[in-house]
Amino acid sequence: MYRLINLLLALALLPLTLQANDGYKLWLQYYPIENAEDWMTDVFTDAKVNGSGETISIIKNELELASEGFFNKKTSFTESGSKLWIALKSELPANLASRSTEDLGEEGYHIFNANGQVIVTANTQFGLLYGTFRLLQQIQLLEPISEHGIVEIPKIQKRVLNHWDNLNRTVERGYSGFSIWNWHRLPRHIDQQYLDYARANASVGINGTAITNVNANALVLTPYYLEKAQALANAFRPYGIKVYLTARFSSPMEIGGLKTADPLDPEVQQWWKDKAKEIYDYIPDFGGFLVKADSEGQPGPHNYGRTQAEGANVLADAVKPFGGIVMWRAFVYSEHTPDDRHKQAYNEFVPIDGKFRDNVIVQVKNGAIDFQPREPFHPLFGAMPETPLMMEFQITQEYLGHDTHLAFLAPMYEEVLKEDTYVNGEGSEVAKVIDGSLHDYSMTAMAGVANIGTDRNWTGHHFHQANWYAYGKLAWNPYERSERIALDWIKLTFTSDPDFVNPVKEMMLRSHEMVVNYMTPLGIHHIMARSHHYGPGPWVTGGERADWTSTYYHNASEKGMGFDRTRARSNALEQYAPELQEKWGNLETVPEKFLLWFHHLPWDHQMKSGNILWDEMALHYQKGVDEARQNVKTWKKLENHVDRYRYEHVLSFLKIQAEEAQWWRDAVLLYFGQFSNRPLPEGVESPEHDLEYYMNINHKFVPGI
Amino acid sequence: MYRLINLLLALALLPLTLQANDGYKLWLQYYPIENAEDWMTDVFTDAKVNGSGETISIIKNELELASEGFFNKKTSFTESGSKLWIALKSELPANLASRSTEDLGEEGYHIFNANGQVIVTANTQFGLLYGTFRLLQQIQLLEPISEHGIVEIPKIQKRVLNHWDNLNRTVERGYSGFSIWNWHRLPRHIDQQYLDYARANASVGINGTAITNVNANALVLTPYYLEKAQALANAFRPYGIKVYLTARFSSPMEIGGLKTADPLDPEVQQWWKDKAKEIYDYIPDFGGFLVKADSEGQPGPHNYGRTQAEGANVLADAVKPFGGIVMWRAFVYSEHTPDDRHKQAYNEFVPIDGKFRDNVIVQVKNGAIDFQPREPFHPLFGAMPETPLMMEFQITQEYLGHDTHLAFLAPMYEEVLKEDTYVNGEGSEVAKVIDGSLHDYSMTAMAGVANIGTDRNWTGHHFHQANWYAYGKLAWNPYERSERIALDWIKLTFTSDPDFVNPVKEMMLRSHEMVVNYMTPLGIHHIMARSHHYGPGPWVTGGERADWTSTYYHNASEKGMGFDRTRARSNALEQYAPELQEKWGNLETVPEKFLLWFHHLPWDHQMKSGNILWDEMALHYQKGVDEARQNVKTWKKLENHVDRYRYEHVLSFLKIQAEEAQWWRDAVLLYFGQFSNRPLPEGVESPEHDLEYYMNINHKFVPGI
Repeated sequence: MYRLINLLLALALLPLTLQANDGYKLWLQYYPIENAEDWMTDVFTDAKVNGSGETISIIKNELELASEGFFNKKTSFTESGSKLWIALKSELPANLASRSTEDLGEEGYHIFNANGQVIVTANTQFGLLYGTFRLLQQIQLLEPISEHGIVEIPKIQKRVLNHWDNLNRTVERGYSGFSIWNWHRLPRHIDQQYLDYARANASVGINGTAITNVNANALVLTPYYLEKAQALANAFRPYGIKVYLTARFSSPMEIGGLKTADPLDPEVQQWWKDKAKEIYDYIPDFGGFLVKADSEGQPGPHNYGRTQAEGANVLADAVKPFGGIVMWRAFVYSEHTPDDRHKQAYNEFVPIDGKFRDNVIVQVKNGAIDFQPREPFHPLFGAMPETPLMMEFQITQEYLGHDTHLAFLAPMYEEVLKEDTYVNGEGSEVAKVIDGSLHDYSMTAMAGVANIGTDRNWTGHHFHQANWYAYGKLAWNPYERSERIALDWIKLTFTSDPDFVNPVKEMMLRSHEMVVNYMTPLGIHHIMARSHHYGPGPWVTGGERADWTSTYYHNASEKGMGFDRTRARSNALEQYAPELQEKWGNLETVPEKFLLWFHHLPWDHQMKSGNILWDEMALHYQKGVDEARQNVKTWKKLENHVDRYRYEHVLSFLKIQAEEAQWWRDAVLLYFGQFSNRPLPEGVESPEHDLEYYMNINHKFVPGI
Repeated sequence: MYRLINLLLALALLPLTLQANDGYKLWLQYYPIENAEDWMTDVFTDAKVNGSGETISIIKNELELASEGFFNKKTSFTESGSKLWIALKSELPANLASRSTEDLGEEGYHIFNANGQVIVTANTQFGLLYGTFRLLQQIQLLEPISEHGIVEIPKIQKRVLNHWDNLNRTVERGYSGFSIWNWHRLPRHIDQQYLDYARANASVGINGTAITNVNANALVLTPYYLEKAQALANAFRPYGIKVYLTARFSSPMEIGGLKTADPLDPEVQQWWKDKAKEIYDYIPDFGGFLVKADSEGQPGPHNYGRTQAEGANVLADAVKPFGGIVMWRAFVYSEHTPDDRHKQAYNEFVPIDGKFRDNVIVQVKNGAIDFQPREPFHPLFGAMPETPLMMEFQITQEYLGHDTHLAFLAPMYEEVLKEDTYVNGEGSEVAKVIDGSLHDYSMTAMAGVANIGTDRNWTGHHFHQANWYAYGKLAWNPYERSERIALDWIKLTFTSDPDFVNPVKEMMLRSHEMVVNYMTPLGIHHIMARSHHYGPGPWVTGGERADWTSTYYHNASEKGMGFDRTRARSNALEQYAPELQEKWGNLETVPEKFLLWFHHLPWDHQMKSGNILWDEMALHYQKGVDEARQNVKTWKKLENHVDRYRYEHVLSFLKIQAEEAQWWRDAVLLYFGQFSNRPLPEGVESPEHDLEYYMNINHKFVPGI
């Protein structure tokens, strides 16, 4: 007997140190729980899930996975479900159904405790799926289900990932390998990874995915690819995820054989109608089109002298009979327009507010330039009361250090969502535009440009998984707090041990500001290397387009630097509400984080700290470097709290980040130092090399282009 | 107490059905062993490993991984090592050392049982590493270690993988994703996958890797990439693996700024010497260069009117002082040479036999055309007694159905290695050329073009892992039997259950012949689709080069088909020994598998079966299709023997293979049917579509080009 016990003890208590954790399981680790409360183990001993079908199977499978992971136990599904009952509200007896008073809509859920029986209910199976993920999250986090329980209803209808994935599997601005869509094997091979992808999305409430690059290839709308898209749509459907496709505006010519793509041409209109019908034959619940037009070389209605609304409406009319929508990007600008690039989208779209069909939503990037480390919110938010606007955030870190830089983006997203547009007076936050409440939009949506690729951990950096997670959480609820998101993600992904959680949370919450500091503090923007955007490039000038250079934006000279967007020069400020024109136009009141975004200032401009601009700027760069170095030290202290594989991987990336932070600091300060003609202030380290060295760095085959 | 026991039982006995197995662990699954003999568990209870350093750490770690996997137990390393002692021969006491009488050389090992103590010994730590992998394999396979034990000494010195990986991470002829070398993250990030790659190679005895494409980019020889190659070399070194680089012949011009790359130019010679010194500064044990020259657009000595020997020798002289070698490919042919492509390499190389430096080895593909599903052995084997020749096998399935077709290649490799060249009389097998015994070569080597990529299971098809494994085994011992390789691989990778092992072994051993049947039976060759080589293309004609068309090879007309390589036409046969000229030139004695390789024959040519050629051919295609369909059925019966993930993945691919076998059959028979003007014989199914349908299939973005 003792030998048996010893043997079993040995088997049960074996440490998992040798088990590699490559991060594939994301925040759904379902790692073992010690000190669980009784109800947490009970729910797996007597569980009932009403209904049948694929979504219900997924729910059951999820319970089994969690039970095995948490407690190394099988789940017992019973007739009674006396410990856990997952059922539609319509299936609950009146006494239980009546406990759930809120309208849960299509996707909301209610989890509550009814005398020791945990109930997960919703109006749809997808609601039940979301509720199940939440229940399992509560258990992993050791958080209770009270009698009143948890009611969650998404505040935004369409929560979509945008994959800038090409048909050859390269990913534009992708830094975690290649596209997970293996088009060649589709439709015949449905890889497990597609299901794992859908599952991960569902677990954070994402319900749509645009699977192809906005710089679109018309081929994706041909039967050859529609058959493949159909296979993906079939795989995603049980997880509540709809497929969207990017539509190249010139498709009627390229794959339709027409002589024009003029949206007012009846043949073109008919072609889109026929094409939509064809797509819906393949994918009955096709989400609709995502379109980048008249932007960076993409064809669009401008080619025919038509407006963006006329362009969008032809596609909208085509998908309307089938319930589809058009997400039309506002990222429209041209090198032929002499005006500040910052102003062009506003100038183009505001005049056509209200001219769009009701199934069009205009997709606006968080800022007016292009996903810079920090931007003020886009002036379109609040400026189109008659046209639904959606937010486009970038999850992939095109301008934030690519794969190796830890930058937790929830604080950045949160910062934008909380900014006040003032368009209906104080309290008109961007989040209220996005959730439709400010202008009573009939449609709401959010897009996140995915950071997902073939890397074994999906996102390159293990911590970049947190940005996918955070995007999902903020798309569900744009009022969610970064800190809460970080805490939950850390605990779900690693451990609940406060000795790990607290320092990592600090590191994450400060990381975006840290990156801003070593890249583009004080409102500096668009000073990265040309084309691949990897590393600093404040010297980038000339070439194809002025608005793709750094000098266009920083305007550095011996007189100072910054982009004067006050009345004195571009007056982009006039696109914001008067309150903001006043606040941001005034050197006394403009937040210093936006200082050089809106103002051109001399090097000796007096900052609030008492420093002059040049010194302040240099100190910001140094601060970013110091923090990046500190993160390496912090992480090293956590070695015993994390599996070796992820520990080493993260450490390696943190070291690269610290090196590259220094690269940024040295290159940028040397460059601007030419103009400031001032020494570096005390506390700022001297660069290792001279400016020429940094200007000559020429990285080959940088990913993402 | 009972509660505790029950709990522990529950923990210990939980079935692993929910555990996904994505195949990343290859043949090193180390899955739990039931019914182990005592010594198999004992070795992990009292083990000693002499020495220190990285290779010794790897050995210890391997024991720990295996112990955990086999028995869910930790390994106890002790001072005594009374159950297992791993030590250099020089470290063993005389009574044990004297047991090992053979010269184990640099890489051989001896494992034996000395009164209950298992001894693993060798002359080097790499020998110990190989011996350790073998010991663990014996345990997983439940095979004994006798008193005499196991002595293994590799029969080939350099056992090298060739990665046709480009610097942008695409892989030429790669069908399992993209390159696992993340050049951008190198040298700073050493991914765990690099170590896992090296470990897998070491476990099958591979000791070298050429990490870049033979269609080479000169940039890899610049410091920017040498620093990255160095990092890989450092990662691989403890596993006994040397790095080789592909050298673009025109590098002195492209990266050296010279006006010529003429190998007789002193400046060019000096450039290569300086470059070699530079490389060895980065990688002191750099293996040497692999070169594709004067072939398919690659620059080479022909550009300067020099011979292949003159070209090779300039590189050889450069690396000679550092112990490096040059692997110079014999795959030289030109569209400007009017002769049968089959003959060109022989014609080019035989006259310069003996003209190469002693650190050059000529790398010859197994056949004279290009990795066709079946080829007679290359006539160069046996024809260059004064110049070491090495074998180049293709592991990646460029002409064998790409990612989704199960084709176990050991039987194909074995077939070639066993062919008799007759050059020194009967018994002059190709294997004896390769192992150096026939011509007393001072250097021996084998190359395998890798099938490894970013796919989560490394090789796309789970069964293609077996080809990587088989290549390693045959490079170590070219006399190894396919059946043994298949058996071991199945048991290591899945299970030893004979209900699974036997049908899977049958399926694997017949699979290459099956693919030949539905693609290119009876000596037919080079009838695949143009450029990407995906699917049938017997109609391919015209275009850039005649020798890249199908019609060049099959010569089909109403009179018949086949390539007449007898005296009557190209007389490629004359490049073989008289015995083979006689045997293969004679319709009575030529094996039917090579019939149309050497002969052009009328459609009603009488076959040994009694059928006419057309009917026989059609029946071969049908047989291939039938077997591919049967494999689906066979696999379905094995569902309960394999984890769900791999079961589904393999099933999906087997279904695709069955469909594509039919595609091949239908397209090829319809095409040749135009000329034969005969009906399909009984037992051959009618094609689903007409010929035009198949000719119009136009796959987009096929991987590997």
